[in-house]
Amino acid sequence: MSTAMRKRTLPLSRAYRLLEPGPVVLVTTASNGRANVMAMSWQTMLEFEPPLVGCVVSNRNFSFTALRATGECVIAIPEARLAPKIVGCGNVSGRRVDKFARFGLTPVPAAHVGAPLIAECFANLECRVVDRRMVESYNFFVLEVVHAWIRPGATAPRTLHHRGRGSFIVAGRTIHLPSRMK
Amino acid sequence: MSTAMRKRTLPLSRAYRLLEPGPVVLVTTASNGRANVMAMSWQTMLEFEPPLVGCVVSNRNFSFTALRATGECVIAIPEARLAPKIVGCGNVSGRRVDKFARFGLTPVPAAHVGAPLIAECFANLECRVVDRRMVESYNFFVLEVVHAWIRPGATAPRTLHHRGRGSFIVAGRTIHLPSRMK
Repeated sequence: MSTAMRKRTLPLSRAYRLLEPGPVVLVTTASNGRANVMAMSWQTMLEFEPPLVGCVVSNRNFSFTALRATGECVIAIPEARLAPKIVGCGNVSGRRVDKFARFGLTPVPAAHVGAPLIAECFANLECRVVDRRMVESYNFFVLEVVHAWIRPGATAPRTLHHRGRGSFIVAGRTIHLPSRMK
Repeated sequence: MSTAMRKRTLPLSRAYRLLEPGPVVLVTTASNGRANVMAMSWQTMLEFEPPLVGCVVSNRNFSFTALRATGECVIAIPEARLAPKIVGCGNVSGRRVDKFARFGLTPVPAAHVGAPLIAECFANLECRVVDRRMVESYNFFVLEVVHAWIRPGATAPRTLHHRGRGSFIVAGRTIHLPSRMK
């Protein structure tokens, strides 16, 4: 387990800028001394600060049980070059496989939650479940981001965006417009 | 008002593939004989079929009142070439301005809801509010997509993805990987 991961704290007020563009993310959990990771695309910001994230973790996923039991996870944001690992994580279940070992992802201890950061991801958001009212209806968890990490110098990351059935968009050029929107 | 908009019905089972990559969307509403449009980036899929979408429409937005009153809206998905119009819609309030006229967006009657489609957008999702339990806490509405329209031939649309503070990513190249994920 590497502890040499290059990371700095990102102010929580900027965390929304990582999730708002809709990247495919990896979600880690840890339960009974065992870490797991899944791929996710069904998430949205709910509030700027403290940053609240709503996300669907299907009860068919092995991660669902750990997330419900511990109330903790890490949302790790990968760049497109990790696409084969991301798809790999989506293709197998943590019930049978140690996906960190299988796909060469490096778990790194988080500061505030039991779930690990992923060293290969440019951003990692430590999260706690703060609202479970919609879990029964939609497997929808409300998470609060309690600490955000970013790789120094990660300014225009090439995130991956899922279009279904193995099809993904890679983030292209960045444009700037005079917006009053936060 | 143009009725020559080129559109075909998209099977509802494929609607998630439009929203899952996290594009900036436009949301139209109509109330008291007046249509309005806002920009939105805080949305997620909640279910494949019937397609359920969760989205945050702030109660500071003029659209909030119309959405709550009518329970209907259209999620229109623009390509990046509409960026100036999108940002324009985000910069002014429908309280004071007819944004369709101001930004040259063409409202087209929908089939099932009172809110209009937007002719310039490559996809339009007619939606009804089906769950309001999270409106008070997070301004979070659960919508069911009741009809999906797509422009014939729209295969790799250059969507826009909001990174905050006037910064946007334009959808880049598409890649395909052997995924078992839906």
